[in-house]
Amino acid sequence: MADMTTWRFTKGHGTENDFVLVPDLDARLDVDAEMARSLADRRAGIGADGVIRVVPTASATEESVRAMAERAPWFMDYRNADGSVAEMCGNGTRVFAAYLRREGLEGADEFEIATRGGIKGIRIEGEMIATNMGRWRFLDPDRAAADGFDSLVHVDGGDEPWSALSVDLGNPHTVVALPETVVLADVDLTRAPHVKPDPSNGTNVELVRVLGDAHIAMRVHERGVGETRSCGTGVCAAALATSFWAGDAEPTRDWTVDVPGGRLRVRALPGHQVELAGPAALIADGTVDLSAL
Amino acid sequence: MADMTTWRFTKGHGTENDFVLVPDLDARLDVDAEMARSLADRRAGIGADGVIRVVPTASATEESVRAMAERAPWFMDYRNADGSVAEMCGNGTRVFAAYLRREGLEGADEFEIATRGGIKGIRIEGEMIATNMGRWRFLDPDRAAADGFDSLVHVDGGDEPWSALSVDLGNPHTVVALPETVVLADVDLTRAPHVKPDPSNGTNVELVRVLGDAHIAMRVHERGVGETRSCGTGVCAAALATSFWAGDAEPTRDWTVDVPGGRLRVRALPGHQVELAGPAALIADGTVDLSAL
Repeated sequence: MADMTTWRFTKGHGTENDFVLVPDLDARLDVDAEMARSLADRRAGIGADGVIRVVPTASATEESVRAMAERAPWFMDYRNADGSVAEMCGNGTRVFAAYLRREGLEGADEFEIATRGGIKGIRIEGEMIATNMGRWRFLDPDRAAADGFDSLVHVDGGDEPWSALSVDLGNPHTVVALPETVVLADVDLTRAPHVKPDPSNGTNVELVRVLGDAHIAMRVHERGVGETRSCGTGVCAAALATSFWAGDAEPTRDWTVDVPGGRLRVRALPGHQVELAGPAALIADGTVDLSAL
Repeated sequence: MADMTTWRFTKGHGTENDFVLVPDLDARLDVDAEMARSLADRRAGIGADGVIRVVPTASATEESVRAMAERAPWFMDYRNADGSVAEMCGNGTRVFAAYLRREGLEGADEFEIATRGGIKGIRIEGEMIATNMGRWRFLDPDRAAADGFDSLVHVDGGDEPWSALSVDLGNPHTVVALPETVVLADVDLTRAPHVKPDPSNGTNVELVRVLGDAHIAMRVHERGVGETRSCGTGVCAAALATSFWAGDAEPTRDWTVDVPGGRLRVRALPGHQVELAGPAALIADGTVDLSAL
């Protein structure tokens, strides 16, 4: 039995969306809600947006996850910083994949990982890691086709509401094409923007500025969190909506999306799926003293 | 020559004021402003309020620090998260002292450490670590003696300004005795409170609620930073001002101060000096990959 008062960890980030990875190759560690909160606490703990336990898929608690074991040997057991279990996290998949590669747990340039949101395909492209984020859809395809917009977004201090389009990627997004007169960096995202019609379970709001051909800058307000430096599904939603407004109902080329935390690439895949590619950094490794948390 | 692409580090906190410690026992590492910012970055780095290089005092760059080497063999080379050099940090001294003890670099229960703010005396009391924070004074002793107050503080959303007293601990503090009708937890400290007369170099503002005999709760807004979970000098200032208002011009007993990050003890020392005692936690140890920062 290992000394259970210290755990190994790795800290990493994908476009500054950061994670504490806890290797648990023998499936012996219990990263429950309280432990995830303690590890992710930015002052009393290590600090991160989320905690990822690296565990064999065959050892997962959930039968629905264990069923993925044959195709995806490693399970990304993800919790948010508040301790809640999450299905998955786009930027987290790259950090998870980078860790599997560095540790020699995956050797190929293409492999699959298990998440609570299903199996995700990973492709290593040098410094970039691409994740198949799965299927997407406009929330109201008819409204989108007719008007290009289906909702209104109003931010603190904004003179008037902005037109927006709702995109579903397993989680809800509302993408705003920012009027030319508004400076992206100047928008106040301290508080959650008001969205009409009111989304029953809240929504993530993306503000988009077109920078060039298939190239946008984006800021995001994540529901229940606030403004973040990057949001994987939000980046996909922003590129998909902007491509649609540009006349490309299904994006036919790669889109570059600049977020405060870095640069990402969005590509449409067959079957109405979307791929997100970007960097992943593993910055520190060590041991955490559980008795001091 | 060690491999210079990775550095060892320890993460610790004192009442949730957190630090990355970089051991540099051979005085070979250059923790400059940019490196401190990178290490302290909460998403792309390890994350902390400040970075402390642990280095022999005799090897310090500054002659004024080297002069302390005979009494204080270890120098707390401190930088704030923004990279700026700081004289010292009260909560940081406890974490620094806990590290020296754990590593066997100091063995006695009482020893001295070198800081840019001079030599600081440390005393270990079991789980508590006491630091002599040095001399303090009321900014305007005559006004203090006559009125008990010398300034007014107005917070966002507050109905009227509150009376306050200015205390100097090497850095400026403005302590507010909160009216009985105001709930400490409800005060909006998102923005810096307005202080009159306007302090030329800004000030830290402490809001105090008396909880019992020699026992207060406090919230603090640090100038240039925002609300924090603890501020060592602010805790001392709050206890000293409240003791004065209670009729004890020089505190004759220990004061307990509850901050959002924990509990501290303030004691008056001879020579108009003040001692701050509290916990220190070393939570993680590891290596950081500089090439990934």
